[in-house]
Amino acid sequence: MLATGVTFADISFKQLPGVGGVGAAFLSQLSRLPNAPSLVLLARSSQTITSPTPAYSPAISPADWQSAESSASLVKSGAWTPEQIATYLSQAPGRAVLVDNTSDPALASAYPLFLGKGVSIVTPNKKAFSSSLQLWKDIFSAASKGNALVYHESTVGAGLPVISTLRDLVATGDKVTRIEGVFSGTLSFLFNTFAPVSASASAPPQKWSQVVAQAKELGYTEPDPRDDLNGMDVARKLTILARIAGLEVESPESFPIESLIPAELANLESGSAGTAEFMRRLSEFDERMEDIKKSAEAEGKVVRYVGSVDVAGKKVRVGLEKFDKGSSIAGLKGSDNIINFYTERYGERPVIIQGSGAGGPVTAMGVTADLLKVLERLR
Amino acid sequence: MLATGVTFADISFKQLPGVGGVGAAFLSQLSRLPNAPSLVLLARSSQTITSPTPAYSPAISPADWQSAESSASLVKSGAWTPEQIATYLSQAPGRAVLVDNTSDPALASAYPLFLGKGVSIVTPNKKAFSSSLQLWKDIFSAASKGNALVYHESTVGAGLPVISTLRDLVATGDKVTRIEGVFSGTLSFLFNTFAPVSASASAPPQKWSQVVAQAKELGYTEPDPRDDLNGMDVARKLTILARIAGLEVESPESFPIESLIPAELANLESGSAGTAEFMRRLSEFDERMEDIKKSAEAEGKVVRYVGSVDVAGKKVRVGLEKFDKGSSIAGLKGSDNIINFYTERYGERPVIIQGSGAGGPVTAMGVTADLLKVLERLR
Repeated sequence: MLATGVTFADISFKQLPGVGGVGAAFLSQLSRLPNAPSLVLLARSSQTITSPTPAYSPAISPADWQSAESSASLVKSGAWTPEQIATYLSQAPGRAVLVDNTSDPALASAYPLFLGKGVSIVTPNKKAFSSSLQLWKDIFSAASKGNALVYHESTVGAGLPVISTLRDLVATGDKVTRIEGVFSGTLSFLFNTFAPVSASASAPPQKWSQVVAQAKELGYTEPDPRDDLNGMDVARKLTILARIAGLEVESPESFPIESLIPAELANLESGSAGTAEFMRRLSEFDERMEDIKKSAEAEGKVVRYVGSVDVAGKKVRVGLEKFDKGSSIAGLKGSDNIINFYTERYGERPVIIQGSGAGGPVTAMGVTADLLKVLERLR
Repeated sequence: MLATGVTFADISFKQLPGVGGVGAAFLSQLSRLPNAPSLVLLARSSQTITSPTPAYSPAISPADWQSAESSASLVKSGAWTPEQIATYLSQAPGRAVLVDNTSDPALASAYPLFLGKGVSIVTPNKKAFSSSLQLWKDIFSAASKGNALVYHESTVGAGLPVISTLRDLVATGDKVTRIEGVFSGTLSFLFNTFAPVSASASAPPQKWSQVVAQAKELGYTEPDPRDDLNGMDVARKLTILARIAGLEVESPESFPIESLIPAELANLESGSAGTAEFMRRLSEFDERMEDIKKSAEAEGKVVRYVGSVDVAGKKVRVGLEKFDKGSSIAGLKGSDNIINFYTERYGERPVIIQGSGAGGPVTAMGVTADLLKVLERLR
């Protein structure tokens, strides 16, 4: 038997129009897998549903998880601590996997506990891999001690093969020299719209604050757009990539992050009143973004929000850069991500991975693909 | 113990300048792997070196393979048949893997024999996966019966994550609707040079036959450029991708392949005299390629040699197509490959994988990464 526990937040990720969260999309994909592992735990912020011990049977139906709550043969509890979840999964017959679809830092901090007990982890949750370097080290040493596996493809670029490609380059002895790309679907959309490579008759130029307001309305930003504009999400992704490439990055705070939140608005309160005030006042600063856009245009370039890792120089940077209009980064469309890996073997031209890097189904795809790899290795 | 046998041709792949063959590059990468499997067999066209039975020890040093021939503790024989190699590897203690770096069709036909005996296979050899559909089916059913694994990432796009990405899309339940790209480094170079997106002062326009001659001189083509120009290499790659996407393609001959060999030269003999005559007479047909180039230019486009799979329409096609100058296919540089996967989940914009798709070190990287995955699963 192979047991799977799935945790997911009530609203764990921003919801693109017509698209469910990662947790729901993952359960839908799980329900269609041939030889799917047995689903024995389903945890949300306030509720935990489990298969009864000691048999860990019957399993929860992933196709029908919304009715699990009313099933008399399953056990319903309130919120469980990470310790309770780890104990429950580690005592299941056979091997167990935790699929963590939340973005919960508390659960992320408990990964070493799970792994040390032999419970493997598959997750799109960036927190565990982009917080302190100590937690990163604890995770991989616990995995090795517990003979458990950790896969986290969807922490960067959602379902795009970013982490796996970087790990393959490193594992086969290539030297990654530089990583550069657009790592946020939201910031990709904002800049592709604000500073397109060629003017479009159907889309006249907009002020920065208008583009942000439009993106918020379309559901392309977090409920509070400041969570995208502060660059932290990109910084977390760069922290993960830099560490895999061999840099001991202490935390996402240990390198420069250019925030797109004007300094004058940095101290607004964090709640919804703060969000509303931020959105109302953002237009006061439109001239600044306009100047940046024009200075790029004067050089025949466009401005984009990128992250980069200079491996030899041990430098990580997140912020605005100018790109030639003919470059692949400038030519990005919609909310696509692009990741360039420059390596010794590949030489002057990078390996490029490009495509949608956000949304429930494609993020869940990365999670499901990881789960399949874990199953192949544990079975 | 995990035993590895490596076969490689004396000149198995075209040699890019300054770059060794795939076999040598693979052995160099193998020699640097921590926890490398034990190398017990090394076979070339005329020679087989093995560790003595029944201990399968001492192993061959991959770092020092060129001196294996003079080692008194290893067994030297002439060429072995695939059957002999399969028997030797299958009787090794523990699990065994054949790494086939040749492009030998006879060895490829014997894959089911290896797999049926429990010997896993890692290979960049396209022959096994792009010949008859029956061989394809025999390979995967033998693998399942023999509880062995088959990985062949480097059969398409060398070390680029093409096969693994397509398999992940399919395995997680996405529907691939269309695959399109430039699959040959040689043809990429030829068309990027012949019909660049923008004219370059340093590189005045060249006739088609001049571009082919230059590429041959630089070592970018096979020794006989007709082996690139006939489109068969691209057709084999498309056969593999179409089959993974779910189409039962009978063989690379069962769909249209546009050959770039003028019909008038199709019946030249196949040896070096034929090659010489082909190169000499190619310029007689420069006007045809010039017309194609100009007709694309008249539409503001450039011509490229691409392969495509229309999954719903069950159509595979290999040949010339026109592309907008702003498209990612038109903008390709050097001898890069690009592969676009269009799927239901990803919608209108594809997942794009781009980068160098030829050369010893990057092809070997795909092989080594596959070997690591096999080791993870077998250990």
